[in-house]
Amino acid sequence: MNNTLISKHDLLNHWLGHRNLTKRVLEKFPEDQLFTFQVDGMRTFADLVKELLSLAVPGLEGIVYNKTEPYNHNLPYHSKTDLLKAWDEATPKIEKLFLQITEERFHESFNLFGEYEFPVIHNILYFIDNEVHHRGQGFVYLRLLGIEPPFFWDR
Amino acid sequence: MNNTLISKHDLLNHWLGHRNLTKRVLEKFPEDQLFTFQVDGMRTFADLVKELLSLAVPGLEGIVYNKTEPYNHNLPYHSKTDLLKAWDEATPKIEKLFLQITEERFHESFNLFGEYEFPVIHNILYFIDNEVHHRGQGFVYLRLLGIEPPFFWDR
Repeated sequence: MNNTLISKHDLLNHWLGHRNLTKRVLEKFPEDQLFTFQVDGMRTFADLVKELLSLAVPGLEGIVYNKTEPYNHNLPYHSKTDLLKAWDEATPKIEKLFLQITEERFHESFNLFGEYEFPVIHNILYFIDNEVHHRGQGFVYLRLLGIEPPFFWDR
Repeated sequence: MNNTLISKHDLLNHWLGHRNLTKRVLEKFPEDQLFTFQVDGMRTFADLVKELLSLAVPGLEGIVYNKTEPYNHNLPYHSKTDLLKAWDEATPKIEKLFLQITEERFHESFNLFGEYEFPVIHNILYFIDNEVHHRGQGFVYLRLLGIEPPFFWDR
């Protein structure tokens, strides 16, 4: 274990901690702005959350079951309750799928969504980074709406 | 090597890729807005970049030399040129310091800046996540200023 920078369980927990924080940003978002408020040239926070949902479980399913179907960001969620429910339902699926990926597999190249040919570890890091990126944008949206975001370091 | 999710060199390159993208956000930022434009309750992008600079090299020096002095976000950079120069000067220092951390060390707890007692790997992941978070905010700032940010996936 000594040459392992981070274990599979630790990387999973790292992601789940980020997902917990993203959920709290979603909880703080006013329902009436979630699907409408946006900065010019950007998407609503609901659309950003839908993107995250459309990558996590479908992406892990692709990796675990070797499926290369494209992603679909356009998910049928039309309320904050829908999004929060989908977020919570994704969590145990992410845990289960993630833990099915063997350590060896993380180094293998995989054509994620039939489009992104990278080692599995890079696909997973992309899921996490992309979530941190869009959540950071959600922080600004909250500030623009006069709402204090949660603390970044509080997972 | 088979139980290693990500090697030390790959994690370093992952961070350097993020730093390259952050640099391009900085390059795109108009000089006259860099130190003045902010969303209510938030800092200027210059201040966010100064925070990133005040964590990376000083944080790694803390880890490598077992120093627990506090960080100082208030760095004496007063122009875009100053910030870009500091950003580039930090890069080879980050490379050199990062590679001095042994794999075993990543699991050891360290009291970063005399304040954050966590395993070294978590301190390092925090540096990266914090940069992705603040750069995501920088993307929104650019959009608010009518400027198209670089592509997130293009490191």
